Amino acid sequence: MIDYRSDNTGRAAPEILDALVRANEGTALGYGADEWTARLQERFSELFETQVRVFPVATGTAANALSLASLAPSWGLVFCNAAAHINTAEANAAGFFGGGLKLAPVAGEHGKVDAGEFARALAAFPPGQLHRGEPAAVNLTQATDLGAVYRFDEVRAVVDVARARGLKVHMDGARVANALARLQCSPADLTWRAGVDILSFGATKNGGALCDAIVVFSPELADRLAIQLRRAGQVWSKMRFASAQLMAYIENGLWLRLATRSNAAAARIAGGIAGIASLKLVAPVEANEIFLELPPGAMDALEADGFQFYRRSATLARFVCRFDVTDAEADALVAALKRHCALPAKAAE
Amino acid sequence: MIDYRSDNTGRAAPEILDALVRANEGTALGYGADEWTARLQERFSELFETQVRVFPVATGTAANALSLASLAPSWGLVFCNAAAHINTAEANAAGFFGGGLKLAPVAGEHGKVDAGEFARALAAFPPGQLHRGEPAAVNLTQATDLGAVYRFDEVRAVVDVARARGLKVHMDGARVANALARLQCSPADLTWRAGVDILSFGATKNGGALCDAIVVFSPELADRLAIQLRRAGQVWSKMRFASAQLMAYIENGLWLRLATRSNAAAARIAGGIAGIASLKLVAPVEANEIFLELPPGAMDALEADGFQFYRRSATLARFVCRFDVTDAEADALVAALKRHCALPAKAAE
Amino acid sequence: MIDYRSDNTGRAAPEILDALVRANEGTALGYGADEWTARLQERFSELFETQVRVFPVATGTAANALSLASLAPSWGLVFCNAAAHINTAEANAAGFFGGGLKLAPVAGEHGKVDAGEFARALAAFPPGQLHRGEPAAVNLTQATDLGAVYRFDEVRAVVDVARARGLKVHMDGARVANALARLQCSPADLTWRAGVDILSFGATKNGGALCDAIVVFSPELADRLAIQLRRAGQVWSKMRFASAQLMAYIENGLWLRLATRSNAAAARIAGGIAGIASLKLVAPVEANEIFLELPPGAMDALEADGFQFYRRSATLARFVCRFDVTDAEADALVAALKRHCALPAKAAE
Amino acid sequence: MIDYRSDNTGRAAPEILDALVRANEGTALGYGADEWTARLQERFSELFETQVRVFPVATGTAANALSLASLAPSWGLVFCNAAAHINTAEANAAGFFGGGLKLAPVAGEHGKVDAGEFARALAAFPPGQLHRGEPAAVNLTQATDLGAVYRFDEVRAVVDVARARGLKVHMDGARVANALARLQCSPADLTWRAGVDILSFGATKNGGALCDAIVVFSPELADRLAIQLRRAGQVWSKMRFASAQLMAYIENGLWLRLATRSNAAAARIAGGIAGIASLKLVAPVEANEIFLELPPGAMDALEADGFQFYRRSATLARFVCRFDVTDAEADALVAALKRHCALPAKAAE
Repeated sequence: MIDYRSDNTGRAAPEILDALVRANEGTALGYGADEWTARLQERFSELFETQVRVFPVATGTAANALSLASLAPSWGLVFCNAAAHINTAEANAAGFFGGGLKLAPVAGEHGKVDAGEFARALAAFPPGQLHRGEPAAVNLTQATDLGAVYRFDEVRAVVDVARARGLKVHMDGARVANALARLQCSPADLTWRAGVDILSFGATKNGGALCDAIVVFSPELADRLAIQLRRAGQVWSKMRFASAQLMAYIENGLWLRLATRSNAAAARIAGGIAGIASLKLVAPVEANEIFLELPPGAMDALEADGFQFYRRSATLARFVCRFDVTDAEADALVAALKRHCALPAKAAE
Repeated sequence: MIDYRSDNTGRAAPEILDALVRANEGTALGYGADEWTARLQERFSELFETQVRVFPVATGTAANALSLASLAPSWGLVFCNAAAHINTAEANAAGFFGGGLKLAPVAGEHGKVDAGEFARALAAFPPGQLHRGEPAAVNLTQATDLGAVYRFDEVRAVVDVARARGLKVHMDGARVANALARLQCSPADLTWRAGVDILSFGATKNGGALCDAIVVFSPELADRLAIQLRRAGQVWSKMRFASAQLMAYIENGLWLRLATRSNAAAARIAGGIAGIASLKLVAPVEANEIFLELPPGAMDALEADGFQFYRRSATLARFVCRFDVTDAEADALVAALKRHCALPAKAAE
Repeated sequence: MIDYRSDNTGRAAPEILDALVRANEGTALGYGADEWTARLQERFSELFETQVRVFPVATGTAANALSLASLAPSWGLVFCNAAAHINTAEANAAGFFGGGLKLAPVAGEHGKVDAGEFARALAAFPPGQLHRGEPAAVNLTQATDLGAVYRFDEVRAVVDVARARGLKVHMDGARVANALARLQCSPADLTWRAGVDILSFGATKNGGALCDAIVVFSPELADRLAIQLRRAGQVWSKMRFASAQLMAYIENGLWLRLATRSNAAAARIAGGIAGIASLKLVAPVEANEIFLELPPGAMDALEADGFQFYRRSATLARFVCRFDVTDAEADALVAALKRHCALPAKAAE
Repeated sequence: MIDYRSDNTGRAAPEILDALVRANEGTALGYGADEWTARLQERFSELFETQVRVFPVATGTAANALSLASLAPSWGLVFCNAAAHINTAEANAAGFFGGGLKLAPVAGEHGKVDAGEFARALAAFPPGQLHRGEPAAVNLTQATDLGAVYRFDEVRAVVDVARARGLKVHMDGARVANALARLQCSPADLTWRAGVDILSFGATKNGGALCDAIVVFSPELADRLAIQLRRAGQVWSKMRFASAQLMAYIENGLWLRLATRSNAAAARIAGGIAGIASLKLVAPVEANEIFLELPPGAMDALEADGFQFYRRSATLARFVCRFDVTDAEADALVAALKRHCALPAKAAE
């Protein structure tokens, strides 16, 4: 079996678990008042080249929903692409933590919020109207839920529209390491320098184990988020075990090395199948995910060959590369795709 | 420094971290659809001698608040002792997850809900009235937040009152291992056989690291809890790392051995100071916590000697024993208490 | 000025205010325990030919949001047409009262939920999945927010899809009188006999003053709705003044006579402009609303002539007929529309 | 039957219904954009001698819960007397609208928050702690739920404690007219000049019909309250019918005349029974309510005589005077109380 189901089916990077185990010495104050969590603030502030507040949380859903709840009043609207994870896969956690805040889908290619469409959507909410709720924030998933990556100017264009109306900006960075590895820019450039107020900092999908984080760039958001996290049950009493994981994750660029590997595997597969007429990519492969429209029967055949992946519809398959996918595994998928999908295309000649 | 601040300042039991590290092999489906989590269901069902559903969660607050939200409608009332953790220390997480459910304090000694007081409180809510909300559940903290342990008949008396009015029963078992170690009864006897519907199963305070659990005895509660947990951001995508911890925690009675040790340390201290007139225990020492009323100046003196503990008021100190408190540390506290507190009592003679 | 802005800009029917004033005698128990409210239950049960529970509420938003919250868990999804009032104009009250429940737009012509599209949408939620929330209910706006009326078989088709998956059915009847007047069917046929579980019974837009109502056909919903209304601040202590209005509203068919008049005015206008090429109806005029795409400049010209109406976009105007629109007013609008809009069409010849 | 059950069992003042009926002319914009509601802002600003925002709402529960939700974050604590209506009789509407905010009872005589007790309660919440929630506001019920009236200096003392910690102040004025009539001070002095931020302005209990109001003194609260009201279903589309009632209520001092009458009736009864040893007032009779501890059998005897009232416990009866209680009715109650209660006392001599 070769597993392309998800990046959360994979192992954790050993460095991260080692750090967790090493944190198991002596006593330390609970609920984040420990030295590890204090150091975490420093490390992330260095990493992002500005003073940030970083809050470890158990899951990306918690990171997203609590971030959005900190940006929007309960009568607020959060704009996002229809394909965004917050809209399709978190059981409306944002609406729950936000006391009824509403997600407002905006069109855009490849899972991105299109700045022009966003501006048009906002125009339907004239300032002062009460009936439709209050536009409050916009969500960018970076990398997107279709495997594409916002370029810096694309982020900036969305931010400009948001700022012109006083909206805040959330980046769902479940795969932010993959985006950074792709863009080769600094974490600061991709986030607060581009206008992002708050970031869901994903680690789990990229070799993490039991925590992600929220990184707050706008200081006025942090104190109320802290108390929300407390009552959201997201503040571990033995927080050091989470903070230690996150420090190991970014130490010496581990996170970017891991993402570079998973990106490379996806690129290798995408490169291998380029030019096969019967295979249609739904979005450019810019991170570690491949969304492929496949000909009839191909999915059954791939599964019969031992490949694991998700069926998003009768014809759409998703393949996700983890950091530890080998070249051989990538090549095996390419070969299988050629075997099962290229032939019909030839037959059509 | 000798640390009696909390049982969450302590280390994790090495067996638990070992298990976590061992789970880091191969790929596994996310969100609890893995083999570890499947085995967890079996192990806990064996442990509790009935078919249970067990959901790992990040924190005790999440366990409590989501348990209560599964028992009560948003207009429900949950009765508890005024000293209960859910009432004093979780930033009203129960009210938040419960959509506005309300905690209704009930009097009782040593942090316990007194069955008679509970019955009197319920009598003020005649069936059919709408103005005061709907009595929905009762919460028992076992061991209590003052370090006492409900005896079996005390649990049963509260349950009987609850059942007579159709209320559900939640046990906050942040220190359930300590209670079991004290009572020497089976997990089943203490919980579902006594009428408990849902249990916050604590591990963190007793040598755990990053997870507690919810154990559901009433099957009709489980499915809706599962989806609530999903959108509460409490379902790890790499759940195996949580499930592995919990299995190690109960394997070969580890949890009870750990609790036996911390209970013994507390008992050793309580025994050592018995008979000192100037020291007043707020509740019997039946688990791993000691609540002491101290004479003026004693707390400063203890801190000067290097003891760490919490001041609950100007005169009330809390000392908590972890599983790894040594006899020497216990004896040192006894000696210091005698030194600083016994003398004034003598002087007063 | 001739006012076509909304049916809520209009007067109340005098019969309704007379009844309110007549209720001002003697004392009566509060919060709905009065004789008027008891009689209201009887009258509505007769009207709907089944035992119903009817709850007066202050507004249609309260009726809709609390109805939906009674049908769906807080993790539930409520399907509706994208144009539905609950989706576009109530500041996400449903999400608020529902604790984060989510509206899921479904395509369909003229503001209707299309049964086929609804079935396709539901197919994306396989039973047992947790990530996307739980399909819980469907909302039908009758008459629709574009002025069309669901035929009986159209309601039934949507209900069939809903029932096959265990979903409940809510009808937003802000203009249910207009729909009934159009369809000439019984209230029972349009609602519970067609499978509707709960109805927002509108009165305000059709000559009412200060209350609408919720009519509950599924008895198991009523008790918990009663307590939700209490804490939603929707239970008047002097309920008799609301109940008296609602009884007068339905007495001797007043409500249907009022709706027949406003429908007739709209039909007269629609008939008068039929065949004008430059005027495009967005939906058939089946109730008391007319949605017209107008040529450039026409809206300014109409306003200059003293007509009041709402601009839904740069080219889309909405004209709403109240029960007291006169034939002369209707004819004046027809004449003005011909004057300002027909000419360009002629010029184009 | 003579009805002392509640002030909400009574009639509306005819002036109020007359105004409602007179508002039924012409068309007017919906949702409060009408001339009546604009004039209401002016009249209330004159009445309170400062620029206020006034929002008509359907019920006192809505006024209280939405006021508190505007003062406190969802993790906030609102201090109040244990007997406060918000704590005992609104099905925890404050917790619901406040997204889980928590009421924190404070001791005090006669239903009042005692400033000293309040300060002591606050001291248990050191700034910066997260575990217990965030103290956010204090609620004063004026007149209290036991029929007493806060004197100006008592309000001020509570406000001083609140302000020293940055808390906001809400006054539940369900019977604010009775308090004003008692204190003979200006509405401004009793409210914003004393430090009140927001007022639930009761009308229903004092001759109103279908609306109360929220009066906002702190302008920064008003805009977000406006949108909360919209989605709370508390913004009538035909708002003029509510605004007209409220204007009539305060016009030419009607509200104070009505309250003076009900206060006088209560005072007449209290005076009539003064000195009867077997009757014990729970609080001084300073508004229109009388809470009496009665000897055994007295309540049955009173009911047999045709008096209606509420039994608050086996021995505590509540008698409420409406504005239209006659002297004869008051004297009849006095006579009956003497008949049934004074005799046993004599007999005991």
